[in-house]
Amino acid sequence: MQQPRAAGGPRVIVAGATGFTGALAAHLLWRHPDFELVAVTGRSEVGRPLQQVYPRYRVPLAFEALEVERLQGIDAAVVAYPHAAAAPTVGALRERGIRVVDLSADFRLRSLVAYERWYGEHPRPELLDEAVYGLTELHRDQIAAAALVANPGCYPTASLLALAPLARAGLIADVVIDAKQGISGAGRVFDETTHLSIAGENIVPYKVAAHRHTPEIEEQLALLIGSSDTGTGTAGAGAAAAKELKVQFQAHLVPLDQGEMASCYVTTTRPVVAEELSDLYAAAYAEEPFVELVDGPPGVLEVRETNYCRVFAAADRHTGKVIAFGAIDNLWKGTSSQAVQNLNLMFGLPETRGLL
Amino acid sequence: MQQPRAAGGPRVIVAGATGFTGALAAHLLWRHPDFELVAVTGRSEVGRPLQQVYPRYRVPLAFEALEVERLQGIDAAVVAYPHAAAAPTVGALRERGIRVVDLSADFRLRSLVAYERWYGEHPRPELLDEAVYGLTELHRDQIAAAALVANPGCYPTASLLALAPLARAGLIADVVIDAKQGISGAGRVFDETTHLSIAGENIVPYKVAAHRHTPEIEEQLALLIGSSDTGTGTAGAGAAAAKELKVQFQAHLVPLDQGEMASCYVTTTRPVVAEELSDLYAAAYAEEPFVELVDGPPGVLEVRETNYCRVFAAADRHTGKVIAFGAIDNLWKGTSSQAVQNLNLMFGLPETRGLL
Amino acid sequence: MQQPRAAGGPRVIVAGATGFTGALAAHLLWRHPDFELVAVTGRSEVGRPLQQVYPRYRVPLAFEALEVERLQGIDAAVVAYPHAAAAPTVGALRERGIRVVDLSADFRLRSLVAYERWYGEHPRPELLDEAVYGLTELHRDQIAAAALVANPGCYPTASLLALAPLARAGLIADVVIDAKQGISGAGRVFDETTHLSIAGENIVPYKVAAHRHTPEIEEQLALLIGSSDTGTGTAGAGAAAAKELKVQFQAHLVPLDQGEMASCYVTTTRPVVAEELSDLYAAAYAEEPFVELVDGPPGVLEVRETNYCRVFAAADRHTGKVIAFGAIDNLWKGTSSQAVQNLNLMFGLPETRGLL
Amino acid sequence: MQQPRAAGGPRVIVAGATGFTGALAAHLLWRHPDFELVAVTGRSEVGRPLQQVYPRYRVPLAFEALEVERLQGIDAAVVAYPHAAAAPTVGALRERGIRVVDLSADFRLRSLVAYERWYGEHPRPELLDEAVYGLTELHRDQIAAAALVANPGCYPTASLLALAPLARAGLIADVVIDAKQGISGAGRVFDETTHLSIAGENIVPYKVAAHRHTPEIEEQLALLIGSSDTGTGTAGAGAAAAKELKVQFQAHLVPLDQGEMASCYVTTTRPVVAEELSDLYAAAYAEEPFVELVDGPPGVLEVRETNYCRVFAAADRHTGKVIAFGAIDNLWKGTSSQAVQNLNLMFGLPETRGLL
Repeated sequence: MQQPRAAGGPRVIVAGATGFTGALAAHLLWRHPDFELVAVTGRSEVGRPLQQVYPRYRVPLAFEALEVERLQGIDAAVVAYPHAAAAPTVGALRERGIRVVDLSADFRLRSLVAYERWYGEHPRPELLDEAVYGLTELHRDQIAAAALVANPGCYPTASLLALAPLARAGLIADVVIDAKQGISGAGRVFDETTHLSIAGENIVPYKVAAHRHTPEIEEQLALLIGSSDTGTGTAGAGAAAAKELKVQFQAHLVPLDQGEMASCYVTTTRPVVAEELSDLYAAAYAEEPFVELVDGPPGVLEVRETNYCRVFAAADRHTGKVIAFGAIDNLWKGTSSQAVQNLNLMFGLPETRGLL
Repeated sequence: MQQPRAAGGPRVIVAGATGFTGALAAHLLWRHPDFELVAVTGRSEVGRPLQQVYPRYRVPLAFEALEVERLQGIDAAVVAYPHAAAAPTVGALRERGIRVVDLSADFRLRSLVAYERWYGEHPRPELLDEAVYGLTELHRDQIAAAALVANPGCYPTASLLALAPLARAGLIADVVIDAKQGISGAGRVFDETTHLSIAGENIVPYKVAAHRHTPEIEEQLALLIGSSDTGTGTAGAGAAAAKELKVQFQAHLVPLDQGEMASCYVTTTRPVVAEELSDLYAAAYAEEPFVELVDGPPGVLEVRETNYCRVFAAADRHTGKVIAFGAIDNLWKGTSSQAVQNLNLMFGLPETRGLL
Repeated sequence: MQQPRAAGGPRVIVAGATGFTGALAAHLLWRHPDFELVAVTGRSEVGRPLQQVYPRYRVPLAFEALEVERLQGIDAAVVAYPHAAAAPTVGALRERGIRVVDLSADFRLRSLVAYERWYGEHPRPELLDEAVYGLTELHRDQIAAAALVANPGCYPTASLLALAPLARAGLIADVVIDAKQGISGAGRVFDETTHLSIAGENIVPYKVAAHRHTPEIEEQLALLIGSSDTGTGTAGAGAAAAKELKVQFQAHLVPLDQGEMASCYVTTTRPVVAEELSDLYAAAYAEEPFVELVDGPPGVLEVRETNYCRVFAAADRHTGKVIAFGAIDNLWKGTSSQAVQNLNLMFGLPETRGLL
Repeated sequence: MQQPRAAGGPRVIVAGATGFTGALAAHLLWRHPDFELVAVTGRSEVGRPLQQVYPRYRVPLAFEALEVERLQGIDAAVVAYPHAAAAPTVGALRERGIRVVDLSADFRLRSLVAYERWYGEHPRPELLDEAVYGLTELHRDQIAAAALVANPGCYPTASLLALAPLARAGLIADVVIDAKQGISGAGRVFDETTHLSIAGENIVPYKVAAHRHTPEIEEQLALLIGSSDTGTGTAGAGAAAAKELKVQFQAHLVPLDQGEMASCYVTTTRPVVAEELSDLYAAAYAEEPFVELVDGPPGVLEVRETNYCRVFAAADRHTGKVIAFGAIDNLWKGTSSQAVQNLNLMFGLPETRGLL
């Protein structure tokens, strides 16, 4: 069998690699110059090589059943389980000292109250303190030191990168986020949502007024706003403003495979002109290797199968609002390549390693 | 040559039938049981049968050059010219007593000031008074009596049908409209916007903070709000509120042919609960033949190649906002079949004639 | 509940209307001016209105479980069951005197031997004699007199209409048929074949060297060839040639919803020039209401959601072969609208009724 | 400005990088670890960075006008000009000692007679002798020693890789090739062929009985057949058989971006069973880094944005024919990544360099 490229590097497994995001994480790690992908797990496909289930990913490893207690010499794991199912496995991995990037929502929220309101009882709440929110550009230093990284949702990734400069500047009084995503966002689910004859010439809003990515965006925006000086000269005012911010988030499925656009409409706390906007975003992102500030509306094709997020912000002189767009590949920067970006940091590698 | 079905009915021409919307109008009128389509015009394709240029529309008429002064015995015209180019032709047709449905923006705005701000000098401002805004469900009686109908833009059609019940009830304090449309919305334009290799796996916002459908939506919403009792007991208060309403409108192209979704996020003037919302929409649309109220988010595939608009509204208990969706086929209800709906009314035919 | 349009006409049911083809047949019959659609059946969706399962088809009838023995006053049934499952129901319906158009393969082959080689044991072989092959253009008179019509497969429909003039003229020595079809051809099946993320940017051959439509095409071609004078002056020679003809048929899925192209490559029994070809096809199809002879390669978009088949044939001077294309909508002319075309004939209605 | 990765390696330019294939070649060379891309040329976009014209390719070089006589220190050029336009530039580059991979058809045919029959007068026939046909897997050694490589057409690439083992074994008596390709195959051409509203739900055959890739396939097959022992014990018999082989080639556009499937139907010179077929293909391709033999029909998605060709061959017991499929990305292995594969060989680099 073909060998992974990085025999000798940190040894990694992907748990739950039968789904779209786990399989892509395996694909990226298999060809990564520094990590050694040693196993992929997935109960439903045990014994089948990953490249047979996903012919576009040339990973010859066969799926195994995960038995955490028998793992030996593993340095890290990417866990791609559904929400609530992930936490117990993450806990078991952490108990064996294995560093984890968890793709589920289980450790994304700092607030247990918020988690339980949106997801139900938390299986392993004691791990929440240890977890670091894995939006690399917002929490780079903490991620580098973390043993458990909660990889963000794809919608929060695109939305927060579009909004962070405004939030940090205390400029967000109200925000509507209208997001559009390709069908890969529905995952390896076989139903009317994903059938080409139904999804193919369609535009469909879903989870109206109820998307679970809402509290994740709100909590992170609150952190950013809380860290700002909102013009009153007191951080406390920012924190107070943050607590009141309710995000209107709405997702739609559109007929492509991979790609996601978050269109954010911000009512600002005070008037903002184009120059200030431009300066704010340049200051935030000039040095970021994976954020591309563009000077017109980006298309998601421009970031397909990359770890880039394209960001564009404009002030609307007619309404006074600010419009900010974040364009990503939902499976890449939205999930799996961002997981690799985080793993790079966690193991002291250059952040862009294996991703350009 | 095959005869149009309705030899003997009102005689109609389509001027500018080389574009997508004019060609579809010709297709619908050719097979209409009561109108007789007698000519299609289009300078760039003179002499070619329409069905050769558009093989999916079986209209054997050959394109002619329009010579208004030589028209004889024509009862009505659908004019599918670009903005500003339409007005002089519309004027010439009206001078010969021909009733017109104009698909351009030239007569959609009542306010000459607004027109000139968004489009430049108006070629025939004296006709503005005569023109009736052709969103059938809002202005049915005026349309039935009109000689010049300004067919709405596709975005205003979807947006206003989604928002009208809220506007009439004086409930709109602020609104963000995020619209998504298939590539047919770009028209028979051959460039990077429409090339399948660029548009096909893409989501692209366009005309950021500058879409010309904005004033059209604002003006019509203002009329609706102005007619409402906003709770103060005076129509004047509604009118004042209306004047201040600035609509945040943003369009996106997504990779399908025909279909358009307007997702509207409304900050309400007072709290609204689900039951009130449901009652408002049922009262507005229960009797409408072409508005389908649905109890979950609609998909545009459900209205493809129909004159229906599907509408769904929900109250978000988390944010307090109301979300309303309008789903149409941009070429049908968004343009050409609505033109036929209006022609039906203008000639005393049942509104649904030729459209079911 | 809204009434079907043709209350008073022949009363029809669709059995198995939960699948794509049955649902479309129901849609077409519901709006048909002469038939009265009185029931749709489908065990998996009992109680749900068809228009809830298929929002694009506005048929308010709720699915029932089929109980043949309780049917009263039914004149005809469209049966849209899987192969082998259809025959017993068709038999029970026939026993009650109900005329049937069967969409399955159960009664398409005259040869029981061929059926059993490709499909296994036949559940109701005694009905084979009664059945008429329902490719309308080939068997119009028999269909008009039939009580049981075996509606053709979609591939045989496109292929035979492309090849019939050549076959009747005894010109086919050998033929390769390469067919391409949209994903609706896979039906309401939810798996990797139909998931937009897998099917969407893909071209996939399937059932290599084993497609069950092969014997159907071979048998019908043999009938056509057998009826020809192959130049020897004896029909017997044609019959002998027919027996030896093995059709190379290969199907592919391509990423659209509805549409099917059969590209047929014919090695001829003698040289054929363009003029002869043109005359042959014109003679065959000039009077056909639903076959459109075109003078260049057709696109399937031109026949989408119609009962038309577009046919184009060309002689290749380089190779000496003849290339013939048949383009249809696989769900319409390929299945459900052809079923209506046949029902029209069976009930003495104009063949085009409800289909233009 | 960002530097190309391989400062110090062989210096390369891409002439005609405004089209799809030239732009992709530039993208691949910019990120190649060993070549230094120093210029991209294209008259229509002079001054614009490539990444502005093609936002998905992050190549910051601005387009220049090509002035061959002023080129200094250039080791190689990829020429992506239209047919006939390429030859003079290729000649001028060769005169300055610059090695060339030419993407046009100008040097693909050994036979000047065949070239002039299909393309018209040849601008630089004296270079034909120098040129090597760049289907890497067939002519690897010659390519490694060549100064002028005529990169194959995309259809010949997929077809010949599917057919080569049969041709070398003298097994092809007759062949029909039915090819399907995504819309990128039409290039950066803006017309009805590429407009998503027309191409998007369509399947369209084109260049019926007249595709210029036909002689290219015939000439290469003849070389392979001529090298075979066709069972008579004399190479001469193979050569004679080769001369008579006329290839029936037909292309179709299907609605995706990148991807191409050649479905080849071979009448064999003698019966072939599955085992022999399997052995033939394994012997041909077991060691090939970019040919993946698969045991079922491949999908083009599996090779998208790779240099791989997936090949599958099956014997049809019913007809006696052999069916062979070749699946590639038309822009990658079909054109631009194969050009890089060839450049790797020409400069003594590992063949897979920059392509995995």
